[in-house]
Amino acid sequence: MVATPGKSYILSFKCPDRLGVVARYSGLLLECGAFITEIANYTDPVSEMFFLRCVFDDRDLVVSIETFAERFAKLADDMGMDYTLRAASDKPKVLVAVSQYDHCLNTLLTKWHSGALPAEIVGVVSNHKTCEAITHWYELPFYYLPVSAATKPQQEAELLDIIARHEVDLLVLARYMQILSDHVCSALAGRVINIHHSFLPGFKGAKPYHQAYERGVKIIGATAHYVTPDLDEGPILVQEIRPIDHATSVEQMVHLGHDLEATALSHAVRLHCEQRIFLNRQRTVIL
Amino acid sequence: MVATPGKSYILSFKCPDRLGVVARYSGLLLECGAFITEIANYTDPVSEMFFLRCVFDDRDLVVSIETFAERFAKLADDMGMDYTLRAASDKPKVLVAVSQYDHCLNTLLTKWHSGALPAEIVGVVSNHKTCEAITHWYELPFYYLPVSAATKPQQEAELLDIIARHEVDLLVLARYMQILSDHVCSALAGRVINIHHSFLPGFKGAKPYHQAYERGVKIIGATAHYVTPDLDEGPILVQEIRPIDHATSVEQMVHLGHDLEATALSHAVRLHCEQRIFLNRQRTVIL
Amino acid sequence: MVATPGKSYILSFKCPDRLGVVARYSGLLLECGAFITEIANYTDPVSEMFFLRCVFDDRDLVVSIETFAERFAKLADDMGMDYTLRAASDKPKVLVAVSQYDHCLNTLLTKWHSGALPAEIVGVVSNHKTCEAITHWYELPFYYLPVSAATKPQQEAELLDIIARHEVDLLVLARYMQILSDHVCSALAGRVINIHHSFLPGFKGAKPYHQAYERGVKIIGATAHYVTPDLDEGPILVQEIRPIDHATSVEQMVHLGHDLEATALSHAVRLHCEQRIFLNRQRTVIL
Amino acid sequence: MVATPGKSYILSFKCPDRLGVVARYSGLLLECGAFITEIANYTDPVSEMFFLRCVFDDRDLVVSIETFAERFAKLADDMGMDYTLRAASDKPKVLVAVSQYDHCLNTLLTKWHSGALPAEIVGVVSNHKTCEAITHWYELPFYYLPVSAATKPQQEAELLDIIARHEVDLLVLARYMQILSDHVCSALAGRVINIHHSFLPGFKGAKPYHQAYERGVKIIGATAHYVTPDLDEGPILVQEIRPIDHATSVEQMVHLGHDLEATALSHAVRLHCEQRIFLNRQRTVIL
Repeated sequence: MVATPGKSYILSFKCPDRLGVVARYSGLLLECGAFITEIANYTDPVSEMFFLRCVFDDRDLVVSIETFAERFAKLADDMGMDYTLRAASDKPKVLVAVSQYDHCLNTLLTKWHSGALPAEIVGVVSNHKTCEAITHWYELPFYYLPVSAATKPQQEAELLDIIARHEVDLLVLARYMQILSDHVCSALAGRVINIHHSFLPGFKGAKPYHQAYERGVKIIGATAHYVTPDLDEGPILVQEIRPIDHATSVEQMVHLGHDLEATALSHAVRLHCEQRIFLNRQRTVIL
Repeated sequence: MVATPGKSYILSFKCPDRLGVVARYSGLLLECGAFITEIANYTDPVSEMFFLRCVFDDRDLVVSIETFAERFAKLADDMGMDYTLRAASDKPKVLVAVSQYDHCLNTLLTKWHSGALPAEIVGVVSNHKTCEAITHWYELPFYYLPVSAATKPQQEAELLDIIARHEVDLLVLARYMQILSDHVCSALAGRVINIHHSFLPGFKGAKPYHQAYERGVKIIGATAHYVTPDLDEGPILVQEIRPIDHATSVEQMVHLGHDLEATALSHAVRLHCEQRIFLNRQRTVIL
Repeated sequence: MVATPGKSYILSFKCPDRLGVVARYSGLLLECGAFITEIANYTDPVSEMFFLRCVFDDRDLVVSIETFAERFAKLADDMGMDYTLRAASDKPKVLVAVSQYDHCLNTLLTKWHSGALPAEIVGVVSNHKTCEAITHWYELPFYYLPVSAATKPQQEAELLDIIARHEVDLLVLARYMQILSDHVCSALAGRVINIHHSFLPGFKGAKPYHQAYERGVKIIGATAHYVTPDLDEGPILVQEIRPIDHATSVEQMVHLGHDLEATALSHAVRLHCEQRIFLNRQRTVIL
Repeated sequence: MVATPGKSYILSFKCPDRLGVVARYSGLLLECGAFITEIANYTDPVSEMFFLRCVFDDRDLVVSIETFAERFAKLADDMGMDYTLRAASDKPKVLVAVSQYDHCLNTLLTKWHSGALPAEIVGVVSNHKTCEAITHWYELPFYYLPVSAATKPQQEAELLDIIARHEVDLLVLARYMQILSDHVCSALAGRVINIHHSFLPGFKGAKPYHQAYERGVKIIGATAHYVTPDLDEGPILVQEIRPIDHATSVEQMVHLGHDLEATALSHAVRLHCEQRIFLNRQRTVIL
């Protein structure tokens, strides 16, 4: 059904897959007159979890959205659901962290500026000043947070403070070349996306293109993943690859890789902001 | 939920997406005690159709499968559903047509023989004898149906007769180099899968690798599609591609293409036999 | 051999593949002491043409580069070569044309600004003002050339004038939504790269993502090609693809496609500026 | 130049990239009247090695092929070349090892039988009898070599004996589920190709699809590589990949993976038999 003007809402939840879950949630939506414009769900036979994402609008609602929210909260409680319900127009607040490579940041800003990324970018943090001017061109605040081994705890405290003040929903590490401490990883669990410039789990850690060159792989890649304290081991969101051959130098891999990185990262950020990603143990479900 | 021993059923249907369809079918499954082990669905906002495929077993059924079938038939009638319900163990009957290239046939037979293709292959038809011996090795009947312009109507009548006698569900054109008449296409609508050795809609018709070479594309492909009277225009099921470069000769394209063709075709046959494919106007939904 | 400081030159040529061509050019390079750091060549058995690209530096030259150039010119004349010889540091001058979509332009500018694109961008022309501000941020001239059916001849004359004044080597159509007249195509033959948002030759012309949606393809693409008077039929340079499924809307194709377009176009521009592309009848050789 | 009837030869060599190597070999070919129908070469700036493969025929030879061979041997000695020169019609002798999965074996046999694989398959060895009948159907000898920890040395001695008796050039491990001892790996260095069912270097060792499932990757792959004593670390020849998503079960990965494996392995065997692969330290050059 094609959406007509009307306020849209995104509902997404996961819960144990017991008998009746589909009947219950679909019954409530039907009863309240939610006009569904997009729906996808998945039942994982291994984890025995049920995942659902739907978009509905209020054109036929027979109760207020607040009443619907209350009734859904009760159902969620009954079924052990982990859920979010928000207006589609309430875009997630995103903070971007970057060091000196600007290709991922530029792609994110281009998409955001043209309205193609359903996020509200609230600023850019960096341990370098390289990207300050372009950030200001987009009329966004730029937070210069230089860091050394000695100042790391304080720098991260400032980062967390910025995140708290802006009520940031998602921190995007757009080639931010610092490893977040376990403390920050835990504080922001499920809310930090990083781009790693290899086809994980191959070539974890530093200089992955050099590793790929040495190993002589015939395909290179980039991986967007949630950040966890276990470096480069967080749940994978998006992977992009491209073939190379013996003549591809490390420098050429870097050039080709920039496109893979910008594409994978911005796609992952879009999926997250559209509320399409669910954690399923160490894996992700994307609806 | 991991399936325990119990008889499995595949239910798939499509119907207009009206309010209540999810509540109705899920309510019936719940009521009858269908233990769902796999489920996927899709709502097309353009065609306003709802598509569902689920696999359930009978471990907790509170009615007989016959009773369930009767009650579902009634629901299907109410909701305008186009549906199939069958035991997973009742594999679709497949007839393979081939000319002289044997790579697609061999891949299909290898997968079928090892149990990897959930189909019952009932035989091979061909307008050449090239593949007779290997067909017999697999202890399958081989129907030699040579064809000329003059004998085509009679040859096709024999083909339809074989299909009728064996109650064939699916005819697979595994590089069968004859164009089926409109009459046969119509008689078997939605039941014939062909492999075309190009990335459709590019390079329709004859000698697609030669066309691809002439045009200088940098990627070649193969396309599995349902056959319609409109040549190479039927609904697309699976597409496989691979990069090439200026040095790739037509002969090398043929070699690389054989793998694309065998992979795309056998994957499409699997999807069809697992009851995963739905027609949605000129497009396909694959669940 | 790893290049040490020394001035680098790019030599590329094509010529009929007659006996002795390799012996002749390699003999001259050897004799003059050209220190080759990169070399690739291809012999096309169909067109019977030989293509070569090499990069050498002057560390061991026993003659001046001018003398080498003179001697090579004589050889080129003897062998019927079409060739270019230039210092690697003399980057090609590039003019970018754009309409309202800015994603391809932004990727080009990002790469150019960071030094990752071996080109000298001399300005941006557009029939809209959308991209004026970002062009100015990069301190590049922006030429606003609005166009209507009536003013097209004059607008194109202005475009050619800008190209002449700046001695532009390459015009890049970065989602420039105007069709160049045959006159301009001919005047700039082999010097205009366009990005088309489909996997050519499928879906030529307007609204290719809509065409792709209607046809129900399972993979979408983007194609960078040289512009010829025959719309969307010019020699193909780079093709990028990505899988989609039945649930991918036209809007999502547009989003995914933007990444394919920016990647394919910027890669093609890089290959052209590195003097890696050769025309071989209607096809391209890329070394 | 299109090859006319005449006997074809494949010449391939690698040597240190010193001044004069191109002039020397091309001069000799020219002098002897070798009519080159296919040529490719690569200069590695890191290892400072030069690699060349060419195919020529004898239509214009002014010396006998024996004389050419003698003169080339002398040149090879001068330049420190590692080279092979053979008639294209002298196909490499290939022995295939398999356990119970037959998909890779079947693809190899299908290609070989239709003339699409330029190899002489001399037989199949296996530690199981599963593939005996199909091997016999192709009128090839089947060597049943069961193996246990205790009998491994003797079993491998028998394997080496078969290889010696048949003058086998290449041993292909087509899902042969035994690890060759270091002794065998060394004895057959550069002459054993294995298929590993993951995108190496990810998921080395056993059960790679299970590992891939656990890790939640979004793309799976298969890798054909030369076997070395260092398990799954040998030089990579061909990698094939395909996207998956959260709904792809391990069982489905196995099915999809079979196509990747058969494609990657048979492609690697073709490249080897066409004398296109060169070792370059731990990497491969493929011309």
